[in-house]
Amino acid sequence: MEQIPSLAKERLLYLMRILEHSREPLTSAQIEALTGWSSPTIRKDISYLSGDADRGAVGTSSGYDPESLLLAIKKALGLERRWKFCVVGLGRLGSAYLNIESFEFKEFDLAAGFDSNVNRTEILKSPVPLYPAYKMGEVISRFGIEIALLCVPAGAAQAAAEKLAAAGIQGIVNFAPVVLALPPEIAVRNVYVADELRALAIKIRQ
Amino acid sequence: MEQIPSLAKERLLYLMRILEHSREPLTSAQIEALTGWSSPTIRKDISYLSGDADRGAVGTSSGYDPESLLLAIKKALGLERRWKFCVVGLGRLGSAYLNIESFEFKEFDLAAGFDSNVNRTEILKSPVPLYPAYKMGEVISRFGIEIALLCVPAGAAQAAAEKLAAAGIQGIVNFAPVVLALPPEIAVRNVYVADELRALAIKIRQ
Repeated sequence: MEQIPSLAKERLLYLMRILEHSREPLTSAQIEALTGWSSPTIRKDISYLSGDADRGAVGTSSGYDPESLLLAIKKALGLERRWKFCVVGLGRLGSAYLNIESFEFKEFDLAAGFDSNVNRTEILKSPVPLYPAYKMGEVISRFGIEIALLCVPAGAAQAAAEKLAAAGIQGIVNFAPVVLALPPEIAVRNVYVADELRALAIKIRQ
Repeated sequence: MEQIPSLAKERLLYLMRILEHSREPLTSAQIEALTGWSSPTIRKDISYLSGDADRGAVGTSSGYDPESLLLAIKKALGLERRWKFCVVGLGRLGSAYLNIESFEFKEFDLAAGFDSNVNRTEILKSPVPLYPAYKMGEVISRFGIEIALLCVPAGAAQAAAEKLAAAGIQGIVNFAPVVLALPPEIAVRNVYVADELRALAIKIRQ
């Protein structure tokens, strides 16, 4: 299969979100109106799937069938299997993600929550078991947890990330407003609300 | 001033985060180690600031001075003034952002919170006044609020976004897992945790 460029992957991830909320076929003009990407860009992105999209994902005159296109994207991006993740840090933000509607997470199964404060792990309502932070290594390896949402305060983030790396976690979504220094084999995505606000401010100013 | 390409702007926003946590001068090699961007890319990004960076932001043998470089980036990106924002939807996620450490928001001042559930707006602890949703138009215009963090459930997001647009809001950080359809003059940034997890899964698979 042709290697998919990383910007095309980002767009395909976003397109999955649109397709998951569509019941009717979508034309590239409709996708253009929703995303702002040009129709040629959209068609080019979808062309990367052609090796995989052998069942109707290719557009007809009425547009792309959402379900077939979604399947083709999942197959091409390797999102067909399920992944286990945990939430680390159970303050307001962490407990929000602990209890978020499960459909939000699609192919991801929440497996555990951790906090260094045992009061929290004992008292918080949770759909999954909660553990004191010192059990991270044991629990992550026992459950085969691959990804962590890191929701601890800024001052605790680097140390918690290092413990997660030592425990064998492979990817971290970092909500703490710091830049983590980790071995390159650990994948990191940063969600910085301040950066989202700044990115908006830059757009608004223009 | 030379127009800064949007990918360079994204990197400069991220670089601001690093600089805000640095007290010592930073070399481009150190920035490369923290970000994974190549030194020539970093130097090129910083060169866009040269018209603005007339006071020491240009690198010396010991590296870039964090404070001067930060100022030059803020000036070049138009982040020198302060912005008012509000939180819409005060469930777990919304109330987390209502109470987040204020330093997280830098040049952004939280001005108000809104929820359609009057119990929440009356009972929740908050550092800013909370209002029932029907007052959004009045309060947003009175306070001059420009940006909203949209933290309502998926099913309520489009309607709330339309009310915000009608109230004169200029930018929305959308945490609801839906694609908003809004007039093009409203700037939107989407924070989709599921997409962050998927982006990690794609990286881990490789």
